[in-house]
Amino acid sequence: MVSLTRIGLAGLAVMGQNLALNIAEKGFPISVYNRTTSKVDETVDRAKLEGNLPLYGFHDPESFVHSIQKPRVIIMLVKAGAPVDQTIKTLSVYMEKGDCIIDGGNEWYENTERREKAMAELGLLYLGMGVSGGEEGARHGPSMMPGGSFDAYKHVEDILLKVSAQVPDSGPCVTYIGKGGSGNFVKMVHNGIEYGDMQLIAEAYDVLKSVGKLSNEELHQVFSEWNKGELLSFLIEITADIFGIKDDKGEGYLVDKVLDKTGMKGTGKWTVQQAAELSIAAPTIASSLDARFLSGLKEERVEASKVFKSGGFGDILAEPAVDKKILIDDVRKTLYASKICSYAQGMNLIRAKSMEKGWDLKLGELARIWKGGCIIRAIFLDRIKKAYDRNPDLANLLVDPEFAEEIVERQSAWRRVVCLAINSGISTPGMSASLAYFDSYRRERLPANLVQAQRDYFGAHTYERIDVPGSFHTEWFKIANQSKM
Amino acid sequence: MVSLTRIGLAGLAVMGQNLALNIAEKGFPISVYNRTTSKVDETVDRAKLEGNLPLYGFHDPESFVHSIQKPRVIIMLVKAGAPVDQTIKTLSVYMEKGDCIIDGGNEWYENTERREKAMAELGLLYLGMGVSGGEEGARHGPSMMPGGSFDAYKHVEDILLKVSAQVPDSGPCVTYIGKGGSGNFVKMVHNGIEYGDMQLIAEAYDVLKSVGKLSNEELHQVFSEWNKGELLSFLIEITADIFGIKDDKGEGYLVDKVLDKTGMKGTGKWTVQQAAELSIAAPTIASSLDARFLSGLKEERVEASKVFKSGGFGDILAEPAVDKKILIDDVRKTLYASKICSYAQGMNLIRAKSMEKGWDLKLGELARIWKGGCIIRAIFLDRIKKAYDRNPDLANLLVDPEFAEEIVERQSAWRRVVCLAINSGISTPGMSASLAYFDSYRRERLPANLVQAQRDYFGAHTYERIDVPGSFHTEWFKIANQSKM
Repeated sequence: MVSLTRIGLAGLAVMGQNLALNIAEKGFPISVYNRTTSKVDETVDRAKLEGNLPLYGFHDPESFVHSIQKPRVIIMLVKAGAPVDQTIKTLSVYMEKGDCIIDGGNEWYENTERREKAMAELGLLYLGMGVSGGEEGARHGPSMMPGGSFDAYKHVEDILLKVSAQVPDSGPCVTYIGKGGSGNFVKMVHNGIEYGDMQLIAEAYDVLKSVGKLSNEELHQVFSEWNKGELLSFLIEITADIFGIKDDKGEGYLVDKVLDKTGMKGTGKWTVQQAAELSIAAPTIASSLDARFLSGLKEERVEASKVFKSGGFGDILAEPAVDKKILIDDVRKTLYASKICSYAQGMNLIRAKSMEKGWDLKLGELARIWKGGCIIRAIFLDRIKKAYDRNPDLANLLVDPEFAEEIVERQSAWRRVVCLAINSGISTPGMSASLAYFDSYRRERLPANLVQAQRDYFGAHTYERIDVPGSFHTEWFKIANQSKM
Repeated sequence: MVSLTRIGLAGLAVMGQNLALNIAEKGFPISVYNRTTSKVDETVDRAKLEGNLPLYGFHDPESFVHSIQKPRVIIMLVKAGAPVDQTIKTLSVYMEKGDCIIDGGNEWYENTERREKAMAELGLLYLGMGVSGGEEGARHGPSMMPGGSFDAYKHVEDILLKVSAQVPDSGPCVTYIGKGGSGNFVKMVHNGIEYGDMQLIAEAYDVLKSVGKLSNEELHQVFSEWNKGELLSFLIEITADIFGIKDDKGEGYLVDKVLDKTGMKGTGKWTVQQAAELSIAAPTIASSLDARFLSGLKEERVEASKVFKSGGFGDILAEPAVDKKILIDDVRKTLYASKICSYAQGMNLIRAKSMEKGWDLKLGELARIWKGGCIIRAIFLDRIKKAYDRNPDLANLLVDPEFAEEIVERQSAWRRVVCLAINSGISTPGMSASLAYFDSYRRERLPANLVQAQRDYFGAHTYERIDVPGSFHTEWFKIANQSKM
């Protein structure tokens, strides 16, 4: 190495290593650093093996920082929370006014806002950048959601445009998201939507397997087929792959040997908490989080299944005769209609936050940068982008003319599948929560009048009327008890 | 007034006035204070009118504090948040070591913990005490949930035992909840459960009215009848009352004139956020919060209903012929079974927090103090208390032998009602989320194996196996693509 590098990357776990190699491969000389130095050597070795990429390793933070051209740009990919603060502390002492730090982890957006302010006092620029795509995405083109200092974004834009996923007709999967913690917030909701997608696919699997009695070979075929149509997406593709993989430790298929316990890392939880905070109904996403919680109670579920088996019913309550072909078609439609509800919730959550914070986020543009690279990439996102292109002020994806038509076409199948699952004792919390969301949102009159009357009855919370403007209170108790006399 | 009073109360809005009168009526001379002094005079006037009760008003904080015997006990009933801090500041300057302050509002439990510490530094004792029962409860006997300083509780126990609701065979509706903010936390979950109960009742109303075509007179009869059986409770009672009340501004019944928008004040939101924080599935409670959010979007719903009416379906999709008597019976069973799920969620949330904080809360004892006075008071709570008496370590109310039997008896009706609603286009988010919760919890095997396989596929998150202990990772992508070649 004779001259200074274009950029630095600190934190060489899976995501960091792969993103560093990606940047180097796109022609940007990069310096890398990790506290555990063996990771540095490992990355340098990979850079050699993968084509003598211009990647330079450093074992100490000072020489790492000084190896980068000014204004320096350093991407951190370390665990969210305290490790990020620690890394900033380690690096910033060697940095100078105008240099930029970019956090590429799944950080809580308020931490980014706190750090951006603290960095600004040192004259440093700061970005919180969501990066989605897992290992493969990081290496070959992720979706990137940088938010914070616009000046910092400008210093690194040329790199981001090249290393992010490239989608024909819609460009690189990156854009400046907005101020403050908006990049982290958008990535958080992306992950919440990802939870919803995964849960809906799992429910489709459950219905097809438990009620439809499809084999893994058949499931592999069905998901491969689905991946050619409206559901074309990364998650459907890998689901098809999963059903095709045999167990390497015994008979049968690997998926059947995987324990039914799902882990999680925090962004789904935050999405649900933020939805509650911002008064946004997000039941599909919430049901996917709850499903992970309940999956974790494996031992309790085993015990409960015994209690209810002795109470007279088994794992599956009924095994209705079903036409496999019709069922597969119905489940596909159900998955698609539920997915619209889930994305509607996520998008409305982003908009509510954008309004609260004055971020001025462009929902259609977010759909565009999710079209490639990230875990939720799907042909479906193009429809969302177009819906917001047609009407940037669209109140809800459900009422976009195209989505509304698609839902109308699918609603009978949707109701059939959820009822079939209910009668079979198969829980489809995501699909049924989505349907209830749709049926609540499209109804002019909900039974909320009763709830408000109750609140006025016991708490004098007042109510509005449908016919006269104003706020009213009734002495319900007195009137009811007079009439009782 | 010649001698010192036994206790003081600051904050004379609806709850404060009524609780002060209740305390005075039980024979405890009380001093009252309010920043807006007209409220003081109003309360003094009421005390005279309601039987020359020993209640003494003060227009300034100093004479108010000094009118109370030592160690002084002052209950605050002011708005949660900053007003509580302000009131503490105003009063504490006149208080002395060993005196007690009790916050009777719906405060966020962490604020109580912060204040308890700050007060301890001044030598003052502090309690955060949930009070439920609305206006009527406060006046004639609420359910009270005091948490924080046990010494403070002891100073006021004689009063609380007398002013709280008295339930035959189970005693006064008050107990020392536990340390720190436990009293507020328990009250918060109580309110979350209250949200769930109200939503489930609203859904029962919706199905009976929209599908069963019951008139308000019939609904009044049905709920009055229900209030004689397993559903006997304050909320069912007031619901029956509500359906019997005619509109005083025109033709027909008042409930039909109430706008279908439900307000809320924060505790339901906190409950949902805490459930997510503590990895507890609480879908029934969450669905009731979402229903309030969606009810608030009245204008959007009106627009959406137009979009979907033109798409070919109306507010009600189908009007199946139903036998009213069977439907009423089915809905009652559905309401009861869903209620069990909702309380199971709330109780498990309390237990999770208790374990996290080391509060050592007694779930059966909480059910006992909710049997009277509070908004969720119900005969049903006695069954919950007995379930925890039978087994204090019960993993979930659903697997208590008696509740399990009750669910088994009701599950066919439950599935019929939810499917009927789905096919009629009536949303029953609470009932269907409860059913999905039950069907998830009682199933030994969930499709979470697929979700975990997906996570391992794209994020190398590893998985466990059903047959071999340990943590495994598979190169799903490589294997799938080898087999594709």
